[in-house]
Parts: sequence; structure tokens; C-alpha cells
Amino acid sequence: MKSHRKELWFNIPTRRAFLNISPQVEECLKESEVKEGLLLCNAMHITASVFINDDESGLHQDYDEWLEKLAPHDPTSKYRHNRAGEDNGDAHLKRQIMGREVVVAVTNGKLDFGPWEQIFYGEFDGRRKKRVLVKIIGE
Amino acid sequence: MKSHRKELWFNIPTRRAFLNISPQVEECLKESEVKEGLLLCNAMHITASVFINDDESGLHQDYDEWLEKLAPHDPTSKYRHNRAGEDNGDAHLKRQIMGREVVVAVTNGKLDFGPWEQIFYGEFDGRRKKRVLVKIIGE
Amino acid sequence: MKSHRKELWFNIPTRRAFLNISPQVEECLKESEVKEGLLLCNAMHITASVFINDDESGLHQDYDEWLEKLAPHDPTSKYRHNRAGEDNGDAHLKRQIMGREVVVAVTNGKLDFGPWEQIFYGEFDGRRKKRVLVKIIGE
Repeated sequence: MKSHRKELWFNIPTRRAFLNISPQVEECLKESEVKEGLLLCNAMHITASVFINDDESGLHQDYDEWLEKLAPHDPTSKYRHNRAGEDNGDAHLKRQIMGREVVVAVTNGKLDFGPWEQIFYGEFDGRRKKRVLVKIIGE
Repeated sequence: MKSHRKELWFNIPTRRAFLNISPQVEECLKESEVKEGLLLCNAMHITASVFINDDESGLHQDYDEWLEKLAPHDPTSKYRHNRAGEDNGDAHLKRQIMGREVVVAVTNGKLDFGPWEQIFYGEFDGRRKKRVLVKIIGE
Repeated sequence: MKSHRKELWFNIPTRRAFLNISPQVEECLKESEVKEGLLLCNAMHITASVFINDDESGLHQDYDEWLEKLAPHDPTSKYRHNRAGEDNGDAHLKRQIMGREVVVAVTNGKLDFGPWEQIFYGEFDGRRKKRVLVKIIGE
């Protein structure tokens, strides 16, 4: 069994954003030389997500507005988590909706994706360096 | 290490539905001859889900109403994603709540499930052919 | 390829609670002697979650209030699932938001976590014995 590990670092200049990281994840897979197996890609921070959906900017705006409605940033005082001086209570909630991780099949050395599947990093508390982990196991 | 891959195809006649796919997934596992390992089952389309819950029709109606409340289909014009001629903006949101994939332990050649666990395909934009991927690795 | 399986049992005295199970999961990993691989940790019941977030009690109260707002327990009669005599319809919905499972990378014999990642059992219908499954594969 082969295994491969890599961290991807991001520093998103805004509080919230969605970033297509499929090219970096594919690069990791290439480096791993795994042909058949499973690839895990997860946010290493608890105010960020890794998820799979469509690379369409209108949809990303829809996601952002919807998450703001389900778990608004303001007023920050409504979150108990913020009473110790944080202002990212909403980000911990948004991340649960969008998810921490994806597991992707590796087949013939490729990410085994349907026609529109792309991997995104979802940032909900940016403006600092944060990491995504890619771990691949197989043969 | 063994690996096995199979696509399951569905053509749901309605926009939305939940379909118990546990028998098909168990059949894939049997074909794989994997006794100990992990099984990934994911929607290959970004307006559908694979999730694990109870096979109870009342609950499925509850899910449907709840998802319609959290991410209503109408008015379709409220989703930026729909401005290019689509009408499935809501389906991309519903799928995030219900999830893209499940990972299931394989033990003694069986899906290692609790008493009520069943795998469902969740369709949020049906009336066309769509796919689920099953990938199994192990020994 | 090595594989290891263990069930963790809980009997939460309240209807809802969040329990940090990272120490038990790390113990399973140690027992497995897997150095490189993947660890699956999932609720075996469909009214409970396993998820990764912060071990901060204010946040856990925020989660509880937020989930009650998104899927209130009362009135129990509003859920079709409850018409057969159950009162846990809301728990099946809350579990979908928080998720069934996590998959964690195993690197150098450790859970490959970011600085604040901790694994939680999320109970939404407690006051009885329920189980979590840990399955580890690798080398």
C-alpha cells in the first residue's frame, strides 16, 4: 500500500470566499503515483470547509447569501463562542453545513469525478494563513 | 490491496425523491470480494446526495418539507445560479445539507451498519439519468 | 494491509449533548498499530452525529440553539415520522446538519489533525445506549 500526504496553504484576503482547489489536489494525486485508492481532502481548521460542487460564480454567491441567512455573522454578540473575544462564531456553524472533508475515489490515477464535480476550499474566517490536508492511500 | 468500482444509474421520474440503494451497494460489495476495508458511495452529480438514515416514508416527507423550507425551489429567480437558464439553484443547496457521500466500514465482507442504517440516493433535480459511484478498497 | 475495528458505547443521560471522544479514538488508533492510513469514525445510530470542531462549551451551546432553530423538537406532532409513536423526528434532521461520520488521515501513527480539531459525538436522542464505530485501515 502506498500513502502520500501534502498540506495546501491558503491566505484568503477576505472573511469569506470559495476557491477551486481541484488543480492542486490533482497535482498531489500525480505526485503520489497511486492508481487505485481513496483520496481524503479536509480543512485542518474548524472555520473552513472542503466540499464538492459546481464552479459557477452565481452559485457561489447563492451559497454565501444562504449561509449568511442560516448563520448570520452579525450581531456577533449573539454567539456565546464570541464572548471570549472571538468574532467567528458564525464560521463554525457555516462550516458544518458545507462540511469538513471530501473522500474521492482514485481510478486509473485520476480523481474519479462526475462531469461537473470540482473541489472547493470554503473559507468563513479568512485573512490569515490556513491549511488543507490531502492524504491518499492505495496502490 | 483489492479495489472495485461500479456506477449505479438512476432516472428518477420526479424532481425530488429518496431511494434506498442499500441492496445495490451490498451487491457491489459482494462482487468486490473485499472482506475488510472501506466503501465510498458518492453522488457523481452536484444536485444529488448519498446519505445514511432511516427507511421510513414519514421521515422522508419530513426531509423533503424541511429542505424546501431551508432552500425553497420557488421563486427560481431568487437564485443567481438560475439566471443563465437553469432552475436547479435550490438543488445545489439541498445537496449540501444532505451531503455528497458516505464512507462505510467493510467487516467480514458486510457493510458494517448499526441496526437502522440504510443508504439513500437523494435526488433534488431528477427526470434525467444520473449516476452514483461505489468504490471499495481493502483485502 | 492492516485493519482494526472497535465500537465505542455511550449512554448520554440527556436528550442532547456533545461529547469529546478524541481520547477514545486515539486509543483505538494505538491498538491498531496502523502508522499510515485512514480512520473512519461514524455514528451507528441515525439520530446521532460524529463531527470535528472545537472543544469550546460556548460553541456547543451555540450549536444546540442553532439546531433547535433549524429543526425544533417541539411541537413533536409536526413531524410525520413521530405519528407512529416516536418523538425524535427532529433528531433525524439535526443529525444531517452535523453529519454521520468523519474520515481522518493517519500519519506516523497519529490522527493527522490541525491545531484545534477534536472529534465529537453529537447526541440528539439520548437516554439510552448507543454506539460509534471506529474502523482503521492502513499499514
